[in-house]
Amino acid sequence: MISGRTTQVVVPMIGDPVAQAATPPLWNAHFQGQGIDAVCVPVHLPAAGLVSFVEWVRHARNVPGFLTTVPHKAALPGLCDHLDDEVHVLGVANTVAKRPDGTLACAMFDGRGMVAALKAAGCDLAAASVAICGAGAAGASIAVQAARQGARRLRLFDLHAPAAVRLAERLGYLGVEIELGRAQPGDVLVNAAPAGSASPFPEEIVATAPAVADCVTEPEETPLLHLARAHGCIAVPGREMAAHQAALMRAFLGLE
Amino acid sequence: MISGRTTQVVVPMIGDPVAQAATPPLWNAHFQGQGIDAVCVPVHLPAAGLVSFVEWVRHARNVPGFLTTVPHKAALPGLCDHLDDEVHVLGVANTVAKRPDGTLACAMFDGRGMVAALKAAGCDLAAASVAICGAGAAGASIAVQAARQGARRLRLFDLHAPAAVRLAERLGYLGVEIELGRAQPGDVLVNAAPAGSASPFPEEIVATAPAVADCVTEPEETPLLHLARAHGCIAVPGREMAAHQAALMRAFLGLE
Repeated sequence: MISGRTTQVVVPMIGDPVAQAATPPLWNAHFQGQGIDAVCVPVHLPAAGLVSFVEWVRHARNVPGFLTTVPHKAALPGLCDHLDDEVHVLGVANTVAKRPDGTLACAMFDGRGMVAALKAAGCDLAAASVAICGAGAAGASIAVQAARQGARRLRLFDLHAPAAVRLAERLGYLGVEIELGRAQPGDVLVNAAPAGSASPFPEEIVATAPAVADCVTEPEETPLLHLARAHGCIAVPGREMAAHQAALMRAFLGLE
Repeated sequence: MISGRTTQVVVPMIGDPVAQAATPPLWNAHFQGQGIDAVCVPVHLPAAGLVSFVEWVRHARNVPGFLTTVPHKAALPGLCDHLDDEVHVLGVANTVAKRPDGTLACAMFDGRGMVAALKAAGCDLAAASVAICGAGAAGASIAVQAARQGARRLRLFDLHAPAAVRLAERLGYLGVEIELGRAQPGDVLVNAAPAGSASPFPEEIVATAPAVADCVTEPEETPLLHLARAHGCIAVPGREMAAHQAALMRAFLGLE
């Protein structure tokens, strides 16, 4: 709810379009449930408005930052003052937080959210071998954070092979073993590719996985997760990852 | 409520501070009551952020314009593309509406709101003599719109006499008789000065007034209104004016 109080925090979410964004209603339900006087407001903003949008946010006293979806993620790093190494590697960010001195920091939270969701489900990635299907921004973010958690090997696969090759090159700085190609027995399996009608990993691999996670949120129960549960694996749905990611984003904005 | 739908209209209200603004909660209650998928969001914006704020609004697809309070009213006309004569005369505006071509029009609605409230209460200003106490933006706006309604004479008074003199000079273009000085018997009386402990018009003048209006909203029942009612005059409280003004502002933004 909009209280109209000057202390009320306003978190815009910009996108073009912004219709697909589930975040504003989810965040508002969270704020209301927790008694936090904040609102998340969807703003339908074409790219031409991005520079001025970032600029006024620097000045607004009750706007701690903002969220973005397509098509702004790749333009954000160039408009912010502080980028962590993950943003440098990925070239994209989806959350901008204003620091007390008015400078802007941007970050991605897909990987941190996935790592937190896996940990909450009982899967620690330290010394794990992690196979990631999908070399887009989500897959890249998960790869960076899995390495941060001490994973000993990342196996990258993408239907569009050059994307996996490029990601492997960009991840070289992590100092972790990186292989290109399909998952092997015993890998922690993570799907970071769009929803499909079949599991992106074959059943015999899933059967041996200590944990299986899917970034897909729609449907909630994907063929991959169904298979994982059938074999008694730890199964982490996309909505769990999204919930952890949202909490980390709010913490980044000082709202948790 | 924030629905998060891309079609949802977002109307920011900017100010520094913005705490005193009653508009966001009032407008949100209105939107909710009418089933309009729109929200009014308070933004605490110092003057340094105004130029970039106006710029991003030009681009945002679900932002039809915005509202302002102190200290932005005087800077707005210089940042907009279309100014009506009232804004030219007053030098201030409190509402900005985006036209379909992306250009911005700004306007004030104090005067239009007061005229509408008087009319709704049964007082037509055509051929009236109108005495206005207070030569600030509200008083000036009311003077312009009273002239528009065909008032034959405006009597302007301000405790700070030079303000009334300057306003009279600026209103010369209206082609209506303008006098400086206190209200006379038979005048429609309008208080556009801040709330005081006593009526700004003497009781013997109030007793003869066809209608009496007060811009003050807090308290709801001012000494002036109390006096007017005691003498059976048409009495228009500040909240009536504010309600009419709000409806006109929403119509200007395409939301009514």
